Amino acid sequence: MVKVVILGQGYVASIFASGLEKVKAGKIRPYGIPLADELPVKIKDIQIVGSYDVDVTKVGRDLHEVVKAYDPEAPETLRGITVRRGIHLKSLRNLPIEATGLDDEMTLKEAVDHLVGEWKELKPDVFINVCTTEAFVPFESREELEEAIEGDKRDRLTATQVYVYAAAEYAKETGGAAFVNAIPTLIANDPVYVELAKESKLAVFGDDGATGATPLTADVLSHFAQRNRYVLDIAQFNIGGNNDFLALTDKERNRSKEFTKSSIVRDLLGYDAPHYIKPTGFLEPLDDKKFIAMHIEYVSFNGAHDEIIITGRINDSPALAGLLVDLVRLGKIAIEKKEFGTVYEVNAFYMKNPGPKDMQNIPRIIAHEKMRMWAGLEPKWL
Amino acid sequence: MVKVVILGQGYVASIFASGLEKVKAGKIRPYGIPLADELPVKIKDIQIVGSYDVDVTKVGRDLHEVVKAYDPEAPETLRGITVRRGIHLKSLRNLPIEATGLDDEMTLKEAVDHLVGEWKELKPDVFINVCTTEAFVPFESREELEEAIEGDKRDRLTATQVYVYAAAEYAKETGGAAFVNAIPTLIANDPVYVELAKESKLAVFGDDGATGATPLTADVLSHFAQRNRYVLDIAQFNIGGNNDFLALTDKERNRSKEFTKSSIVRDLLGYDAPHYIKPTGFLEPLDDKKFIAMHIEYVSFNGAHDEIIITGRINDSPALAGLLVDLVRLGKIAIEKKEFGTVYEVNAFYMKNPGPKDMQNIPRIIAHEKMRMWAGLEPKWL
Amino acid sequence: MVKVVILGQGYVASIFASGLEKVKAGKIRPYGIPLADELPVKIKDIQIVGSYDVDVTKVGRDLHEVVKAYDPEAPETLRGITVRRGIHLKSLRNLPIEATGLDDEMTLKEAVDHLVGEWKELKPDVFINVCTTEAFVPFESREELEEAIEGDKRDRLTATQVYVYAAAEYAKETGGAAFVNAIPTLIANDPVYVELAKESKLAVFGDDGATGATPLTADVLSHFAQRNRYVLDIAQFNIGGNNDFLALTDKERNRSKEFTKSSIVRDLLGYDAPHYIKPTGFLEPLDDKKFIAMHIEYVSFNGAHDEIIITGRINDSPALAGLLVDLVRLGKIAIEKKEFGTVYEVNAFYMKNPGPKDMQNIPRIIAHEKMRMWAGLEPKWL
Amino acid sequence: MVKVVILGQGYVASIFASGLEKVKAGKIRPYGIPLADELPVKIKDIQIVGSYDVDVTKVGRDLHEVVKAYDPEAPETLRGITVRRGIHLKSLRNLPIEATGLDDEMTLKEAVDHLVGEWKELKPDVFINVCTTEAFVPFESREELEEAIEGDKRDRLTATQVYVYAAAEYAKETGGAAFVNAIPTLIANDPVYVELAKESKLAVFGDDGATGATPLTADVLSHFAQRNRYVLDIAQFNIGGNNDFLALTDKERNRSKEFTKSSIVRDLLGYDAPHYIKPTGFLEPLDDKKFIAMHIEYVSFNGAHDEIIITGRINDSPALAGLLVDLVRLGKIAIEKKEFGTVYEVNAFYMKNPGPKDMQNIPRIIAHEKMRMWAGLEPKWL
Repeated sequence: MVKVVILGQGYVASIFASGLEKVKAGKIRPYGIPLADELPVKIKDIQIVGSYDVDVTKVGRDLHEVVKAYDPEAPETLRGITVRRGIHLKSLRNLPIEATGLDDEMTLKEAVDHLVGEWKELKPDVFINVCTTEAFVPFESREELEEAIEGDKRDRLTATQVYVYAAAEYAKETGGAAFVNAIPTLIANDPVYVELAKESKLAVFGDDGATGATPLTADVLSHFAQRNRYVLDIAQFNIGGNNDFLALTDKERNRSKEFTKSSIVRDLLGYDAPHYIKPTGFLEPLDDKKFIAMHIEYVSFNGAHDEIIITGRINDSPALAGLLVDLVRLGKIAIEKKEFGTVYEVNAFYMKNPGPKDMQNIPRIIAHEKMRMWAGLEPKWL
Repeated sequence: MVKVVILGQGYVASIFASGLEKVKAGKIRPYGIPLADELPVKIKDIQIVGSYDVDVTKVGRDLHEVVKAYDPEAPETLRGITVRRGIHLKSLRNLPIEATGLDDEMTLKEAVDHLVGEWKELKPDVFINVCTTEAFVPFESREELEEAIEGDKRDRLTATQVYVYAAAEYAKETGGAAFVNAIPTLIANDPVYVELAKESKLAVFGDDGATGATPLTADVLSHFAQRNRYVLDIAQFNIGGNNDFLALTDKERNRSKEFTKSSIVRDLLGYDAPHYIKPTGFLEPLDDKKFIAMHIEYVSFNGAHDEIIITGRINDSPALAGLLVDLVRLGKIAIEKKEFGTVYEVNAFYMKNPGPKDMQNIPRIIAHEKMRMWAGLEPKWL
Repeated sequence: MVKVVILGQGYVASIFASGLEKVKAGKIRPYGIPLADELPVKIKDIQIVGSYDVDVTKVGRDLHEVVKAYDPEAPETLRGITVRRGIHLKSLRNLPIEATGLDDEMTLKEAVDHLVGEWKELKPDVFINVCTTEAFVPFESREELEEAIEGDKRDRLTATQVYVYAAAEYAKETGGAAFVNAIPTLIANDPVYVELAKESKLAVFGDDGATGATPLTADVLSHFAQRNRYVLDIAQFNIGGNNDFLALTDKERNRSKEFTKSSIVRDLLGYDAPHYIKPTGFLEPLDDKKFIAMHIEYVSFNGAHDEIIITGRINDSPALAGLLVDLVRLGKIAIEKKEFGTVYEVNAFYMKNPGPKDMQNIPRIIAHEKMRMWAGLEPKWL
Repeated sequence: MVKVVILGQGYVASIFASGLEKVKAGKIRPYGIPLADELPVKIKDIQIVGSYDVDVTKVGRDLHEVVKAYDPEAPETLRGITVRRGIHLKSLRNLPIEATGLDDEMTLKEAVDHLVGEWKELKPDVFINVCTTEAFVPFESREELEEAIEGDKRDRLTATQVYVYAAAEYAKETGGAAFVNAIPTLIANDPVYVELAKESKLAVFGDDGATGATPLTADVLSHFAQRNRYVLDIAQFNIGGNNDFLALTDKERNRSKEFTKSSIVRDLLGYDAPHYIKPTGFLEPLDDKKFIAMHIEYVSFNGAHDEIIITGRINDSPALAGLLVDLVRLGKIAIEKKEFGTVYEVNAFYMKNPGPKDMQNIPRIIAHEKMRMWAGLEPKWL
């Protein structure tokens, strides 16, 4: 059994919950879940035990009701869990959403204690953090972090930063837990948090789930690198209509994306080909189905100039939600293996910005094999 | 030093010759040559010692003149080699080219002897076969092959099939050689030829150089496979204006493409997703720069349907010519390692239809690493 | 009221029937019907009174049942019409469909009389011909046509050629009718048929309904022509999974597409830019939703070379079915205006190969305005 | 003879100058010039008599030298014209260019007098304004404009606004001139300027030359409108590497693009389909060759959902430069016809934001025909 607490009951979390229950019930095939039935921890072993949000239209409502707004075919098995009030800290600032968090009612320290208290009852193994993209500042030292919590410095912290702090507290008290950070806020890439996690028996996976155009771009760049084709330039656009794209129209949040290792191009090609790789726009009717477009020019043998263009219509939330079904199970495995801190082998395949801080991006196809081996599976092609 | 004989002095061979000399002279960077300067056998060690064709406008002319028709900037260092008459056997039938071959003047057995005689003077290490795509029938037994040669059965054999036979003869007499078959005719996938090669101390790489849209499709399919996305259908078009596209408008030749492992989809995905992957048309003004278009639909998590479209403008001949610069050096290494017959580790990365017959396609990124290790290099990412 | 008889109850006809009833019932908006509510003859005035096919699984069944196989949401209002046996003449040869036609039971002359007899009861104003693409030979003289019918020359005639002959007979006897030929068989472009139609008070619209990539290509070419950009080459692919694409894998039928004015490029650009514009392949899972890809290179000012690529996923049958909703009403108007023979103003907008024979393709945007004026409407932009 | 003064000797003006001279010399064909040889005023009648800029590396240098930086094949016939100092007013602010203008040495009133003085010697018929995109505020009243000039209010005015004021002065004194405003600053759409022009015998064409993806989008939208397909959403990206894209990374300037009639979607479709149509990014290696990508979803008949994607590589400056070759000649014709103020018939085809203020966008194919008729030519298709 893997008990899961969801932090941020938005699009991704709702598709995760809905798809998970459908797969468990045998209603749909486990497509989009990389390791499907291969892991010793099975999909049917996953159990959602709690969910947190700050949207006033969600807090206090039944999970089934909330999920249904995103997927009309949400299974009935989601009934019985009530969405709880989480940390706000202006996570939804500038978005057209009315929100109140625990922090609007108590100090941060009290909120942390409140959460740890609830979690001791829910007994989760794994937390998945799928809050809206935040404008954040990483922590430089443990003291700075402790002071921010203790001193109730609300402007210094984001919801994610508080959640991980609380999860570490919980892990320390209960003997082990895992935290999957699927958003760009630096956690697995922040040595302060990795150190805290290691000490507290918390396994952290992160940062920023590897979905969308970037992993495909990565594999296409690897394709060119292996043939020694010289990439001249890379332009990559994407536009969508979900809240995450809306959030990125906010300048400050958009900057948080820049913390994501922009070194992916250099890591894979071995040189820094000029590139423009950014979330580009918000167009509401696209909803969760984003449009991506990518243009790459390169030099082939004898000085020949080639170009390829990739366009796509991709459902944004299912891509990430499917990865989460693996990540919660890998979290459980990390706890069992007592691999606390962060796990590069997992991050390298599943995350856009694989922690720890000093580690590179590698071709995902290679990362996939390494991750399999970490999880005790046979490699597929090696 | 690696001495090379070219069989079929068309677009690919001419770009190979021209680009090779430019790289050797330091005029251009070795882009498009996967292993560039990494191999112990260096690019500057490659020396073209002979070239064969059957086009009456090429035979007897200086290599520099012939290459110049394909690349106006062909280096002067190509002067001094005269294009020799090779095997025809109607290889250029239906193409608007006047051709005569050795076989128009003598029996096949005599032609083989003639070639072996010339090669003993030229002393090539490696042959690269870049004849026009042929309509062919693979051989089922050694006897059938021997009888075809001895019995002068011209309708049973293609130019390639005779060339390999002669190369085996040459290797047997001289102690070792390598044959790179960059066209679809089954050689590395024909057990009869592999057996003959092994006995004769000939290393054969083949079949059908892995250029164009297919290797990219392979990596994209691997990308989906690793995420357990279920591919619904694949349509892949390409159209070009060089002689190879013109040749494929001929029904019989086009069929020869079908021998190419159509199992690439099944090999990489694990199931046979419906697909249409074929050379599509000839449009002369496109010349060597082909247009490719690919459409893939797949199912992601929670039943979501996604699609991606890849289009590109790609110079056809340089892509293959760059691979040949590696393959001749790997041929030399195979001779040194005495690895005769065929070498899957090399074929799996460089060939569309990697021999031997019963071997699968694997993701090219993995194949690349295995090939490096075979060649004595460090893997790049493993 | 416009009474309609359908010839060929396949995908297009079924989407026509289903969509028409939904629009009439106010269940969906009239999207895809160019003139929507603008014409004096209203959409709700259209009434399907008969349907003909030769597929043994369709003949004798209720129209609602047949349509439901193509559109699960077919309205109940389609009940009450029984699909009748039509002309076969091997129209479905080579397709995996069992078929028998009137011509399998009687002479062609008798079949014509049989049809005219049925139609005199059904009293249709307009026939819409949406049979599967046929391999055909146009008629050179009236005598040849008459002899083919009278002499029961089954190999000389296609189903369409017989249907038009019968429709002319019916029109002559009843004082006027219209025939919409939405497939490539030359009717509006065959002077023999146009003459016959004129004499018989039959208005013929044709040939080959202007759907798919070609009308868009036409407008894009017009766009370049007006800016005096010099088009270097045009490649256009399309692949689909419906019966029409399957039928085109048959070489003979495919040739029938070649009768379609290949002069579209010359007509719009003023010169014959090299082009490859052909249906390309069949891939069953695409079903009615085809994938198109188009590549155009051109020269701009100061010798600059530009290129555009258009790709699309397009529902094939609805595009044509929507045009038919206009065409049946324009047929009624032609009868009222007594414009028998063929009407270029209508054909130029709605048909790929606008008759009569000697007339050119013009930009569709211009054709649209001229067609409006013919139909008594104000032009939209002029 | 048409004498031309260039305002802003950047990429577009340089390609204009270079291409014009090549066409005049018969070295290249007049591709990209819509009316080519059709107008009574011939291309060879165009003569560049002056050029203005504020870049310190350009002012005082020979035109040939400046143009050569943009087109290495600039003809020698461009020698003999010295680039003069123009109006700056921070037009190049935030760009990595050192600039000084007349306004850095004298009052605006004096600068206007200075320019008019020079122009009386150069005797231009037509001015073409191709300054870098400006951050501007339109004028609400004549008084406001006069006060800004007289009161030397440098923060209120842009270079373009001063240039048109000076051109009007010049036209009034000399009996007629034309001003082509190819950038977004509202001139032909600012009633204050149109009134001033009319009184001063100045013909103004504007605003914002219709190049790039937008005119193509317009024709594609018209294509859908005529078929009554309901457009659900439109996303259009473009990225380039020339100074104009760099300038648009500046927030203020980018806003100036928003003055451009965003009503193009509403004008052509008849409703305001949700859209994202914006210059998107700057990527230097793309240089003048931009990458565009466009995605359009629409509803066809029977509720079917279709989508098309257009991508392209387009040389930015030649597209506009080619139009300028027409516009200077149409300017001369306007002077001859004494059509002062602004001319919608010309603007509707050549401009993204056709003035006057209250006029709509219409399909370019229709606009083209109307423009031809205004210029005294036969329509091509009507």
